[in-house]
Amino acid sequence: MNPTDLINHQTAAALYDFAKSLPIIDYHNHLSFADIQNNRRFTDIYALWIEPDPYKHRAMRMCGVEEAYITGDADPMEKFIRWCETLPKLIGNPLYTWSRMELERVFGLREMLNAGNADRLWRECNAYLETHDITPTALLDLFGAEYISPCASLLDDVELCRDNRNVAPSLRGDDIVSVIPAFLDRLRGLTHIDIRDLDDFQKAIQRRLDAFQSCGCCFSDHALDNGFVYVPDDGHNSERFRALCEGNLPEAEKNSLSSCILTFLGREYASRGMTMQLHIGAQRYTSTRLRQAAGAAGGYAGIGNSVDICSLTRFLDTLDCGIHGLPKTVLFALNPADNAPLSVLSGSYSRDGVAGLVTQGPAWWWCDHSTGIREVLESSAAFGVLHNFIGMTTDSRSFLSFVRHDYFRRILCSWLGEKVERGEWLCNTDDLRELVYHICYKNAHEIIQKGGTNL
Amino acid sequence: MNPTDLINHQTAAALYDFAKSLPIIDYHNHLSFADIQNNRRFTDIYALWIEPDPYKHRAMRMCGVEEAYITGDADPMEKFIRWCETLPKLIGNPLYTWSRMELERVFGLREMLNAGNADRLWRECNAYLETHDITPTALLDLFGAEYISPCASLLDDVELCRDNRNVAPSLRGDDIVSVIPAFLDRLRGLTHIDIRDLDDFQKAIQRRLDAFQSCGCCFSDHALDNGFVYVPDDGHNSERFRALCEGNLPEAEKNSLSSCILTFLGREYASRGMTMQLHIGAQRYTSTRLRQAAGAAGGYAGIGNSVDICSLTRFLDTLDCGIHGLPKTVLFALNPADNAPLSVLSGSYSRDGVAGLVTQGPAWWWCDHSTGIREVLESSAAFGVLHNFIGMTTDSRSFLSFVRHDYFRRILCSWLGEKVERGEWLCNTDDLRELVYHICYKNAHEIIQKGGTNL
Amino acid sequence: MNPTDLINHQTAAALYDFAKSLPIIDYHNHLSFADIQNNRRFTDIYALWIEPDPYKHRAMRMCGVEEAYITGDADPMEKFIRWCETLPKLIGNPLYTWSRMELERVFGLREMLNAGNADRLWRECNAYLETHDITPTALLDLFGAEYISPCASLLDDVELCRDNRNVAPSLRGDDIVSVIPAFLDRLRGLTHIDIRDLDDFQKAIQRRLDAFQSCGCCFSDHALDNGFVYVPDDGHNSERFRALCEGNLPEAEKNSLSSCILTFLGREYASRGMTMQLHIGAQRYTSTRLRQAAGAAGGYAGIGNSVDICSLTRFLDTLDCGIHGLPKTVLFALNPADNAPLSVLSGSYSRDGVAGLVTQGPAWWWCDHSTGIREVLESSAAFGVLHNFIGMTTDSRSFLSFVRHDYFRRILCSWLGEKVERGEWLCNTDDLRELVYHICYKNAHEIIQKGGTNL
Repeated sequence: MNPTDLINHQTAAALYDFAKSLPIIDYHNHLSFADIQNNRRFTDIYALWIEPDPYKHRAMRMCGVEEAYITGDADPMEKFIRWCETLPKLIGNPLYTWSRMELERVFGLREMLNAGNADRLWRECNAYLETHDITPTALLDLFGAEYISPCASLLDDVELCRDNRNVAPSLRGDDIVSVIPAFLDRLRGLTHIDIRDLDDFQKAIQRRLDAFQSCGCCFSDHALDNGFVYVPDDGHNSERFRALCEGNLPEAEKNSLSSCILTFLGREYASRGMTMQLHIGAQRYTSTRLRQAAGAAGGYAGIGNSVDICSLTRFLDTLDCGIHGLPKTVLFALNPADNAPLSVLSGSYSRDGVAGLVTQGPAWWWCDHSTGIREVLESSAAFGVLHNFIGMTTDSRSFLSFVRHDYFRRILCSWLGEKVERGEWLCNTDDLRELVYHICYKNAHEIIQKGGTNL
Repeated sequence: MNPTDLINHQTAAALYDFAKSLPIIDYHNHLSFADIQNNRRFTDIYALWIEPDPYKHRAMRMCGVEEAYITGDADPMEKFIRWCETLPKLIGNPLYTWSRMELERVFGLREMLNAGNADRLWRECNAYLETHDITPTALLDLFGAEYISPCASLLDDVELCRDNRNVAPSLRGDDIVSVIPAFLDRLRGLTHIDIRDLDDFQKAIQRRLDAFQSCGCCFSDHALDNGFVYVPDDGHNSERFRALCEGNLPEAEKNSLSSCILTFLGREYASRGMTMQLHIGAQRYTSTRLRQAAGAAGGYAGIGNSVDICSLTRFLDTLDCGIHGLPKTVLFALNPADNAPLSVLSGSYSRDGVAGLVTQGPAWWWCDHSTGIREVLESSAAFGVLHNFIGMTTDSRSFLSFVRHDYFRRILCSWLGEKVERGEWLCNTDDLRELVYHICYKNAHEIIQKGGTNL
Repeated sequence: MNPTDLINHQTAAALYDFAKSLPIIDYHNHLSFADIQNNRRFTDIYALWIEPDPYKHRAMRMCGVEEAYITGDADPMEKFIRWCETLPKLIGNPLYTWSRMELERVFGLREMLNAGNADRLWRECNAYLETHDITPTALLDLFGAEYISPCASLLDDVELCRDNRNVAPSLRGDDIVSVIPAFLDRLRGLTHIDIRDLDDFQKAIQRRLDAFQSCGCCFSDHALDNGFVYVPDDGHNSERFRALCEGNLPEAEKNSLSSCILTFLGREYASRGMTMQLHIGAQRYTSTRLRQAAGAAGGYAGIGNSVDICSLTRFLDTLDCGIHGLPKTVLFALNPADNAPLSVLSGSYSRDGVAGLVTQGPAWWWCDHSTGIREVLESSAAFGVLHNFIGMTTDSRSFLSFVRHDYFRRILCSWLGEKVERGEWLCNTDDLRELVYHICYKNAHEIIQKGGTNL
């Protein structure tokens, strides 16, 4: 990337010159713990770049590439070639820019892939991988990633993070909230608690939360998918839990129990000083066929309808009324129509002494493109306090995706520069630099510093 | 403010030069009738500037300021200092710009508040207030406010407006629509009508509407909050009203009765030539704790889901089918996702000889920032007829908020200037000046001129 | 239009210079088959320009013009004059720009209509029409329209298209899906099939689809209006169909039968290689009074709430699971809040070898203005693959509306130019030209080339 790519005008360039060298904190992603633990050596570009990235798979499908060359059993080189053929059609999609950034940053490549150079670049990139030590450790170094937090289930072993200053687990709590008997069995095995009732379940969760925290965990994460409804506690959830254990909880009762567990977790996060991320609005069920072909995270998910604001505010209020109050909460909108309502909620809950108790998270998943990033900045500033924004995270399965921090920073600086140059914001460059510092580094860093202690 | 602040380029500057000196019509706000009647003399900057403004309270909470320094019993100077400490963090939020404009316009201050100068400015501003006559009258003069219309309940005494050419009440009708027995008691007392049934209630309402109109009222206002549902009349509302009087109207029946009363009021507005404002989409219940601490309008409200278009169109159609048709109606969207649907409704109802029977209102409440204002202009122009737009109103509780008209005018002119300079609009500056005149003054002025007579 | 109108900067100008001469494919509109068949000679500007255009009627109403001068029995010249008086108030609305383009393109007029020149221009334009052969054929020529596809009911005679390379019917399927007994009677008459049960109905539909295809039909179109709900087949639709035939299908059962018929049609489209357009989100019932005055398509329709994503994905998935899969599907959003969710669905379904199986359609109806067009381009690019976008169609009832292709192309090129000049897109002009070619011509042309054969 040229220093001026994605950067318009002078103010942006000055800000970016400062922003570009700030360390990266990637507080939520889906990187493989196994790859990190083994410090896997990547030896072909397909395995490094294409295989773990459902975004690329999706784009190939959209351009008519046969599934055999995406998730099927075609040869990796063939799959790479199909991706190269697809790429020039993606102008305007963030994949186009990200791909260029990824290849340049890791391989020093400044030419764009296409059908014509695919063969050659397959050989050149693989030769590069043979002669260079491209591993998670090397990549974290290359990108200046000071701290990453891949997500893990409560059942996962996260001990590898115990003495690692740079890697900590982020708790993915969806399987706790949508608990099934098999989950309980595994939890019993892990905690040696004989879970018979809701109290036992909560004790077992607490034990695992202790373990996560002792391994540095300070972020949790829940998906509030399309259709999310929060059901206030009616006092019958102990009975529902027993019915679940016995395998006869009616479908219509599940929301009540889930709401109860989510509330319990939210209170735990608050008392433990953990930050709760809510990823709101995915429509994960679209094509049954692709779900079978590509798995649950295969890149075909949709954006659901706007979140039910009553349900969301009731959930947050329930926590707010609790003894520990609301944990620090980050609201990620997948449907851009939710940007404004979610930004505004940052002003609806507060705690003495805590800046940004509720904030909007960065543009997420399908929204993580230039327009989406700008829209989130816009709504966070106009409806909230941008100074409290905790910055970018990749949410990615690929070690190359750290370029998206650079992408974000370039867009952030350009957006800020435009505000100033159009006379819309009446502030000086020093103020803006301070703002950039808080957004790109300081706010997330403070969460980590305070992690494990009550805010 | 420099003449070029918020103003980009030449076309905008020329338009603003014209717009800036137009008188202000503020047809909907929450200013205190008592302060107006007593022409209250403000003697400290906290009481003038911070105490009445829930926007500032909200921003302080978001930055972690303790509630004691917001709505609590800390010393006014301490509260002022906390606000000064907060302000530099608000870059990007309209409060930052408004604050600068307010201080400059009233106190001639051109420096921005911060932790460093808070002490000194507390003394300087208060010294200024001691030596200057800062009262509602003086402030209306200063801002060139020709006409203001603070809202009042049907039960409020608005006689002070009777012979006042500059101040008229705007009817806030929510407590009529959500009528409770205590409201009826007070209405009986005021009107000397023994309200026993729905007919009596309607007569009493009419008597008060007569009183409001004789005091110059030509605007009414209803909140259609998140979850608004319109229930067509099923012929049983007289019974429901009797049940209400007897204190046994079931919760589930309330919507029917409310819809019936709202329809009655809409018909009255139409027959009386009053304009009906609908403020759509607030989520007023968020944090129970803040509601207790800061009251019903304490600045923690949220944005609800998109309004149910079927309910809204059914309500408007019911009025449209009535003998007097639909009153002039202004639709205010709090959820930006409603901008397009509400703008489009401006083309769905009409009356011979009435321009702009239905129009979209200006960006409202949390949306009253540069982006929000531009979005409303954009949708009003593209989906409707911007020429019919009735312009800005502050909707504020603070006498300093009239700067927002200047804010609006600068943004309007910049937005128009961009359209022309980008070649997007094919029109000359004279046409634009005419447009600015209608938006900033003429359209609202015409409503007031015709107020009290059927359109 | 000057070559630079709506065009900003150099990159846009270069792209437009290429785009402007591409032939027009207008794959969905409401032009009159009778006018086409008779090659109607237009002899007054009212009949050519105002009478068939509900957009203009709507704008006049919004400006207070009496209905007598819109759909009433006032003199055509008087109606023309009212329209001229209205036009200057429409700055910012696309009608303003379109009108200018229409008059200039057809009459060579470069002055804008207004109250002052209405009389004179009425005479001049009509004189022009007397001396020039302004007919559908001449207009298609003038605009370079290579292919148009007006929509027709399954019951309509489309034989006139049989040997016409430039005109093919687009099937409007709403009356099939919302079948009523009278429709069945007419279908029986046309097909000579004695429709007694659902199977017979489907056979009759197939026979008509054969006829449509033999006349070149390769596009179908369904309106999924506000409130659309998809009900999966429960095995009882044969019974429901019989109840319908006997006139006693309960209202509450209609959605199930409609969903079943829609699914049947979708499968037919897939097996026949027809493209299915879904026009999503209209609120057609607003003012009862205007519906009576102006008919079902009288220009007073609204925008409904966001489409229920679960219903839509379930419908698409049901087709996707079928033996022929999903037909090529184009999703048109009327509510701009649906742009993002619908764009994203372009990545949720796929078929080996088919590029753009699902794409977002161009800005539609009330959204067909500069902002709306840009928003659709933005979301199609950022969430999908813009390269697959099938381009503009007028959806209009007026033969002059082909100027909207020029309008679209100017906006497209300006938008692309901005992306490049702001450094946001890292690509060269050749790539962009290729993109423009696919969007403006190639993608729609390919559909037509393959029409009638399975994709």
